[in-house]
Amino acid sequence: MQAGKPILYSYFRSSCSWRVRIALALKSIDYETIPINLIKDGGQQFSEEFQALNPMKQVPALKIDGITIGQSLAIIEYLEETRPTPRLLPRDPKKRAHVRMISDLIAGGIQPLQNLSVLKQVGQENQLTWAQKAITSGFNALEQILQSTAGRYCVGDEVSMADLCLVPQVANAERLSRHPWSPISEALLSIWLSPEPPPPNSDKPDLLHKNQKCV
Amino acid sequence: MQAGKPILYSYFRSSCSWRVRIALALKSIDYETIPINLIKDGGQQFSEEFQALNPMKQVPALKIDGITIGQSLAIIEYLEETRPTPRLLPRDPKKRAHVRMISDLIAGGIQPLQNLSVLKQVGQENQLTWAQKAITSGFNALEQILQSTAGRYCVGDEVSMADLCLVPQVANAERLSRHPWSPISEALLSIWLSPEPPPPNSDKPDLLHKNQKCV
Repeated sequence: MQAGKPILYSYFRSSCSWRVRIALALKSIDYETIPINLIKDGGQQFSEEFQALNPMKQVPALKIDGITIGQSLAIIEYLEETRPTPRLLPRDPKKRAHVRMISDLIAGGIQPLQNLSVLKQVGQENQLTWAQKAITSGFNALEQILQSTAGRYCVGDEVSMADLCLVPQVANAERLSRHPWSPISEALLSIWLSPEPPPPNSDKPDLLHKNQKCV
Repeated sequence: MQAGKPILYSYFRSSCSWRVRIALALKSIDYETIPINLIKDGGQQFSEEFQALNPMKQVPALKIDGITIGQSLAIIEYLEETRPTPRLLPRDPKKRAHVRMISDLIAGGIQPLQNLSVLKQVGQENQLTWAQKAITSGFNALEQILQSTAGRYCVGDEVSMADLCLVPQVANAERLSRHPWSPISEALLSIWLSPEPPPPNSDKPDLLHKNQKCV
């Protein structure tokens, strides 16, 4: 059922696309990127061609193994089930629950409230206050949870889907909110940015190049 | 590690709590409910006691097997991994990807934009228009996806996590938006509401009692 190289529809500044890019990199999956510019031409995600592919008119979407999957966490879970090495969910069900709780907190509780389409709807005058409220409230909760789950990474000492959500969300937060990071977020981020060896069986991707070009 | 009967912190009108209540019912898991009234006393979710339990100040939260899990989909995935019968995720990884895509679309792409705290923030004057926009746009996408994934239920002919997300979201939508349902949503809902036999190995819970009392 392998139908050629996977194709990722992605935008360089989309934090949800970024989660998937990290997963693909960590799992050393070779793929092609088709950039969907969310700003240019009024938003290329609104084109008929792209809507047919992802009715949510959002990136990322991944064409893989003959299907197209939208929603970043659904994509990462599929990659995990079909390309399990290195794993992005721990073996222990309780730790997996923590990973998914943190991932869902970011993907459902922070990101949707400060994404491009919502900020447009809020209007230019109010959007910074709006974004800051979502980010501050979300990160306050997140950091309280990390106090009890984190080791070297968000949950214990293994990189997981939760870290793939945290890093792009922190970049968003820095851009939109200048949230004062607590020591735990600082520590977790410094690991991603450090020149230390990557975790076993994985390549550390180029995670926080803020000035990255459009993919 | 079983530490007594699971405790669900829940609010009767919370669509996210409702997803978990369906999962617990389908899996015949005996549990206790502690109601967290999101309106009374300025919102019981803001109490210090509850915040210590779930820093996101949201329901549901489930105390089970010695841990507390927040975020409805993380809870359902944990129940699925530890109490797998009847299953709420199909065996086939591609179908699982469809289930998670639909679940995430609702849990991350519709619900967070029309929940109580966001509508408060939008203000009474604008909240109906705001909610309707989120619901219409989300359901338009959802129904396009269901065209290709649904059989008797959201994905094929088995009840899955996607249905557990769809039913409460439809109830929200009816309350907030009066979205004109397409034939496919009507058909899916009519199955949940019908007097026909429940799916194998499961009890059909009392899903759409709109006038249910606060649990």
